[in-house]
Amino acid sequence: MDSKAFYKLGYGLYIVSSHQGDKLNGQIANTVFQVTSIPPTIAVSINKQNLTWEYIKASGVFAVSVLCQDTPLPFIGRFGFKSGRDADKLADIKYRLGTTGAPLVLDNTNALFEAKVINSIDVVTHTIYIGEIVESEVLGDKPSLTYEYYQQVKRGTTPKTAPSYVAEKKE
Amino acid sequence: MDSKAFYKLGYGLYIVSSHQGDKLNGQIANTVFQVTSIPPTIAVSINKQNLTWEYIKASGVFAVSVLCQDTPLPFIGRFGFKSGRDADKLADIKYRLGTTGAPLVLDNTNALFEAKVINSIDVVTHTIYIGEIVESEVLGDKPSLTYEYYQQVKRGTTPKTAPSYVAEKKE
Repeated sequence: MDSKAFYKLGYGLYIVSSHQGDKLNGQIANTVFQVTSIPPTIAVSINKQNLTWEYIKASGVFAVSVLCQDTPLPFIGRFGFKSGRDADKLADIKYRLGTTGAPLVLDNTNALFEAKVINSIDVVTHTIYIGEIVESEVLGDKPSLTYEYYQQVKRGTTPKTAPSYVAEKKE
Repeated sequence: MDSKAFYKLGYGLYIVSSHQGDKLNGQIANTVFQVTSIPPTIAVSINKQNLTWEYIKASGVFAVSVLCQDTPLPFIGRFGFKSGRDADKLADIKYRLGTTGAPLVLDNTNALFEAKVINSIDVVTHTIYIGEIVESEVLGDKPSLTYEYYQQVKRGTTPKTAPSYVAEKKE
C-alpha cells in the first residue's frame, strides 16, 4: 500500500459549524460533498474527538462555509488547529446565525449551506453525517479553495484528527 | 435555496469499478473521499440505478482510478455517459484485475485504490459505500483532474444520475 496515493484525491476546504443551545463552534473539514440532488443532501465527515462532532450530534444540524482560495492561513489555523473547548473560535469573526441555529461563518466564504441531519454512519474514528439542505446561498464569485492548493501553494499542513492525515513513514 | 451554491464544492474525478463474477464494469464518480486514516478507508457515493452499484453490492469490493487532468473527454464520456448494460466499457481499455477481482483502469490514471466494503449507508437515490483499503498505488505524477477543471476548462457536462447533477431552472 502506498499512502501517497491518498494525496491524489481531490477536495475543497470548508468550515463545518454547529451549535449546542447557545454554544457555537466550527472546524475545518475537507470532506464535504453532495450525495443526492433530489432531495438535495450533503455529507460531512467529522472526527469524533472534535467539539463540532458533539454539537452536530446534539443539535442534529450543521452548516458549511465554502472557503475562498485567498483565505489567509491564520484563519484556517484558527478553525483547523485549535479546539473550541479552549477558545471561542468565533470571537471577532463575521458570522450570522442560520435558521437552524448553527453559526454561518461569512469571512472568506463564497457559499453557504445549512442542513438537518437525516442519517449518519459510524466509521471508526469518524462519523459521516448526511444532511438535507434547508438553506443554501452564494456569497460571491471568488474561486473556492482546494485542498491541493492549500497544501501545495499555501504550504498548509494537516492536523492528526483529519480524515486525510497521513503519518509520514520512513521508507 | 440557491442550487448554484453546490457548484462551489470541490471534487476530483474518478473511475469507480467493480465486478460480479467475471463481469466487469466501471463508471465516473466525483464523490470519492478518505474517511479515516487508521485504518485507511475511503467512501464512494454511487447511484442505485448504475450497474457498478449492483456489482459493488454483489461483490463487496470496489476499485478507484484517479483520473489525470489531461484525460480526454471521450474517455470520460465512455465511462460516464454510457451504461455497462449496453456495452463493454472496458473493451480496448488498458486495465488489470486487482487482488479483489475488480478491474483497475490504468489509462489516464495517476493513482489506484482497491477496497473491501465494510459498511454502507442508503441515501435516497444513492448508496455511500465505505471501503477499507487493501491496495493503493501511485502510477505517475501528473496532476489529478478536478471536477471544476472538467466543467470549466474541458466544458464537460454531468449525467442525471450524478450526485452533483443540478437541473437547470428558469430564473
